[in-house]
Amino acid sequence: MATDLRRIGMEHVEIIRGAGHPLVYADWLRVPGKPTCLCYAHYDVQPPDPLDEWVTPPFEPTERNQNLYARGAVDDKGQLVTQLKALESILKTHDGKLPINVRVIYEGEEEVGGEQIEAFVREHPERLKADFALISDTEMFAPELPTLCVGLRGMIYTEVEVRGAKTDLHSGMYGGAAPNPFIALGHIIAGLRDRDGRILIPGFYADVQKPSEAELKAWKNLPFNEEEYRTAEVGASKLVGEKGYSVLERTWARPTLDVHGIVGGFTGAGAKTVIPAKATAKISMRLVPKMKPQTTFRQFSEYVQSLCPEGVSVEVRLIHSGEASLIPTENPWIRAATRAMKTVWNKDTVFIRSGGSIPIVGDFERSLKIPSVMMGFGLPDDGLHAPNEKFHIPNFYRGIESVIRFFGEAARG
Amino acid sequence: MATDLRRIGMEHVEIIRGAGHPLVYADWLRVPGKPTCLCYAHYDVQPPDPLDEWVTPPFEPTERNQNLYARGAVDDKGQLVTQLKALESILKTHDGKLPINVRVIYEGEEEVGGEQIEAFVREHPERLKADFALISDTEMFAPELPTLCVGLRGMIYTEVEVRGAKTDLHSGMYGGAAPNPFIALGHIIAGLRDRDGRILIPGFYADVQKPSEAELKAWKNLPFNEEEYRTAEVGASKLVGEKGYSVLERTWARPTLDVHGIVGGFTGAGAKTVIPAKATAKISMRLVPKMKPQTTFRQFSEYVQSLCPEGVSVEVRLIHSGEASLIPTENPWIRAATRAMKTVWNKDTVFIRSGGSIPIVGDFERSLKIPSVMMGFGLPDDGLHAPNEKFHIPNFYRGIESVIRFFGEAARG
Repeated sequence: MATDLRRIGMEHVEIIRGAGHPLVYADWLRVPGKPTCLCYAHYDVQPPDPLDEWVTPPFEPTERNQNLYARGAVDDKGQLVTQLKALESILKTHDGKLPINVRVIYEGEEEVGGEQIEAFVREHPERLKADFALISDTEMFAPELPTLCVGLRGMIYTEVEVRGAKTDLHSGMYGGAAPNPFIALGHIIAGLRDRDGRILIPGFYADVQKPSEAELKAWKNLPFNEEEYRTAEVGASKLVGEKGYSVLERTWARPTLDVHGIVGGFTGAGAKTVIPAKATAKISMRLVPKMKPQTTFRQFSEYVQSLCPEGVSVEVRLIHSGEASLIPTENPWIRAATRAMKTVWNKDTVFIRSGGSIPIVGDFERSLKIPSVMMGFGLPDDGLHAPNEKFHIPNFYRGIESVIRFFGEAARG
Repeated sequence: MATDLRRIGMEHVEIIRGAGHPLVYADWLRVPGKPTCLCYAHYDVQPPDPLDEWVTPPFEPTERNQNLYARGAVDDKGQLVTQLKALESILKTHDGKLPINVRVIYEGEEEVGGEQIEAFVREHPERLKADFALISDTEMFAPELPTLCVGLRGMIYTEVEVRGAKTDLHSGMYGGAAPNPFIALGHIIAGLRDRDGRILIPGFYADVQKPSEAELKAWKNLPFNEEEYRTAEVGASKLVGEKGYSVLERTWARPTLDVHGIVGGFTGAGAKTVIPAKATAKISMRLVPKMKPQTTFRQFSEYVQSLCPEGVSVEVRLIHSGEASLIPTENPWIRAATRAMKTVWNKDTVFIRSGGSIPIVGDFERSLKIPSVMMGFGLPDDGLHAPNEKFHIPNFYRGIESVIRFFGEAARG
């Protein structure tokens, strides 16, 4: 990336090394008086497992039916490249000049907490000084529907480790006397979320705010078919979640809790009859605006401790966290983005939220005091974090053009 | 083993090959009119994981403090060798003659269900015709305390697979709508066993019989210190299990349920935010005499289905099963064994049960109509199925002598 940024004409290219994967910085600041855009994307990806479910190898990008299949195709390597190619196009066709000032910061730890960029933003805000950020890490609500994401959920990711006996024990000899960490985790998990998806942590919903009537009304008008979403996208016999809320409200504006894996014991083929000494559940919660990660983690920890059965002890660890974000649609950079996309797609932009978390948006808000324009070109069925992740190739080209026109609109203010 | 059996003077040595690990058979049937003993042990072992907890490598037997450390040291390779060495000693010192007729059958699939020997016993009972069996796969109640095990729990080992969405999904995008198989398993597991260890499957306890008053009284006189068992053996803050039953009753004479591992989702280091398409729990139940594995499996399956939350489906698979066994202490071969052990240890034998399962004992009962003498020389802290499994070396030698004298006592009838 650094080589590419130099090649296309960006300046002050720098690989910023820290404890983990380095940051990549570049800028082009040669139009004083014009606004500055901070371009952000991430080059790291989720683990590709389960490997045996990939039709073609995850790290050999393969084209099929106008899609490019690969881990990171859309999240977020492919979207990062839309920025690079937009910058290259303008610089190449305009004598090495951009219509606005641009800084680029790319990170390599978004999927594992983004600690390094969070520290860099906090400690060196002057190096990223800008008027707004362009984040290329979101998706369109539907094919051919230009979309800006104006809200994100935050999250806390935790590990809940339950310890029973001092060593693994034989379930024949000790079954009936030794505590079983998996059964303890079963009681804890069942106590966290009821069968309808309502989270039972005391105080969990206290700071949750209902979306405005206008926002809820706009969501109702989005082309969303719950039955199609259930069958084609989720593929489950029934959708779950809190009663009394629509799917969009549940996934965009309500906090949720999920379990991602349970480590420990015997997971091979066959039948090992072990009562393991410990088992660890990976549990995360998605947060909505006004919820504070520290508060939620404290409520969660205390509640998990209270659910812990006798005979075992439980340790709750915070792996990482990020606040939710919400940006007003009247923001001038949001408006510049909608004008740009109108030119490319010939359609009005819809404003949505995302149930996912992009903690950097909160970091930019807090440390740089700038809003983020989340303009992304993924599609709902792209398979983020799953086998056979893809990027729709026409969206890749329209994405490049949208970024080009956005810079032009931003120059006009 | 076949080579060794031939070398020491056993006859008709045969490796009986089937789908899995072969059986090894041998006999010496040259004293008509004397009883026939069927010697059984198993040469397969549990998986050695977690590997990083072994002080010395699991497959490099290492001597420390009069113990031999290795996977299978006591369960059951070491105990198998006590039989081999007893036979070798007698044959070597008595002109190639044994005091009774002996058949030997060793299997290599005890830890994974023993399907092959079960079929062989059922289909070829004439090849294993005997008056009693000697099973070397149990332990002594305490160091220096000769012990016969007269009761075993049976078991059913199952896999409970929960399926939600058709593919792994991102918990940001779909959290609040997609069913989570881990949370479903949490509800199922919490529904199976309450916080006190009582199993909630309807009908589960219907056929359970209370041990006789004499047996319960004898157990009370055993040198058992619950506090020492809790701290030194189990090492948990509290023992668990049904209220109103002693530890020995809970582990020997009450059915139990344990979870051994949960397969699926993300179990690596860090934070993958996946809602997995499926998750599978390995769940087993220990059964007591009179309980029927088929009945218990049906009750379990139906109850698990009834616990299954909406949005997911559940499949319950039976991996293997075995009935419980109980042998009267007045049995003549049990009495011969107690006389043999009195000679070696100069102490009266105690009669115990084991919470573990040795399905072959039930197979011998059903197909050969013979009782099994379970004379074993393990110790409670040997770490069966766990890292750093050991065999106490003095028990190895006394075990050999006990088997030698048992054959002599059995010859006297």
